[in-house]
Amino acid sequence: MPAPIEFYFDFTSPYGYLLAHRIDEIAAGHGRTTDWHPFLLGMAFKITGAVPLPEIPVKGAYSLHDIQRSARYFGLPYRHPTRFPLPTHSAARSFYWLQDHDAARARPFALACLRALFVEDRDISAPATVLDVAAAQGADRAALEQALADPAVKDRLRSETEAAIARGVFGSPFTIIDGEPFWGADRVPQIERWLAGGF
Amino acid sequence: MPAPIEFYFDFTSPYGYLLAHRIDEIAAGHGRTTDWHPFLLGMAFKITGAVPLPEIPVKGAYSLHDIQRSARYFGLPYRHPTRFPLPTHSAARSFYWLQDHDAARARPFALACLRALFVEDRDISAPATVLDVAAAQGADRAALEQALADPAVKDRLRSETEAAIARGVFGSPFTIIDGEPFWGADRVPQIERWLAGGF
Repeated sequence: MPAPIEFYFDFTSPYGYLLAHRIDEIAAGHGRTTDWHPFLLGMAFKITGAVPLPEIPVKGAYSLHDIQRSARYFGLPYRHPTRFPLPTHSAARSFYWLQDHDAARARPFALACLRALFVEDRDISAPATVLDVAAAQGADRAALEQALADPAVKDRLRSETEAAIARGVFGSPFTIIDGEPFWGADRVPQIERWLAGGF
Repeated sequence: MPAPIEFYFDFTSPYGYLLAHRIDEIAAGHGRTTDWHPFLLGMAFKITGAVPLPEIPVKGAYSLHDIQRSARYFGLPYRHPTRFPLPTHSAARSFYWLQDHDAARARPFALACLRALFVEDRDISAPATVLDVAAAQGADRAALEQALADPAVKDRLRSETEAAIARGVFGSPFTIIDGEPFWGADRVPQIERWLAGGF
């Protein structure tokens, strides 16, 4: 049984939103499973010196256009968020807490949270919004609200982010298959070929 | 008759090398022609604040790996150049001079020059190397050598680069089809879909 495919993303990454909706299906097509690792892209940017796309002259405007075209290419709806990028601590902490306490709801929650931001234009930096999204997925809102204030839950996200960076993750989405790194939703054709043993 | 597809690249761009070997075939598959526009990526980087890939922590190392995997994906040979990136003024000026004076040799020269750098590890920043490559393609070495010292030929590359930047070109390769911009060799699937009228 091969190791799970590791899928890293930040909840504020549009290309992460796209690949999150496909990676499990791609993996399953090759008899593989996945592990999801939300992390804080801003901490990786401190190492690479990268800046958020909207702040980059010329390339920023292109990227907004490319994101929308890429969403059409993936066959997914997309509405560029009013607030972008935004902090994703609450969303990522909620994911890990759900994974540990209500595992079956973690990924449906993550996908719903990404859609809340990139389709419904909701401000998922607000803990209340994240709790609403989780509750709508059937999670225990009160328990999750309490967890978000727990230092151990905060430490968990910090250590997950540090572990991601230690593995060389510097962008979102970032997929690692048997040690082979693939940055970007646009690496799907190479991911497919890798999984098919074609490299 | 639709307008030619515009293909922008810098001779020191590995992903430009890859797409240069495919773009004409992709265009022809949809009954389209191409115009090639080598330019100086460094001038665009001054606007976007981008830095050459090897200078970026973590991402730089990934990129070297990704370039080699992408070359395998494209089915093209690749040997990372000893000197990289390097100045491409002589190569780009030679391209435009050939286009104006010996048009049929311009693209074969460009492809040979890209292979000289990315397969044969030759230093194409040296005018002598560029002249050797051009001569091997049957170009008039002496006439081209004289042209490389001509201020008008230098002005031509400067104005081509300014025109590229004015069109929003900020990376290499960069393809514009009927006004629609596509950055990167990894946008081939979207270019194909665009040309098929699928967007």
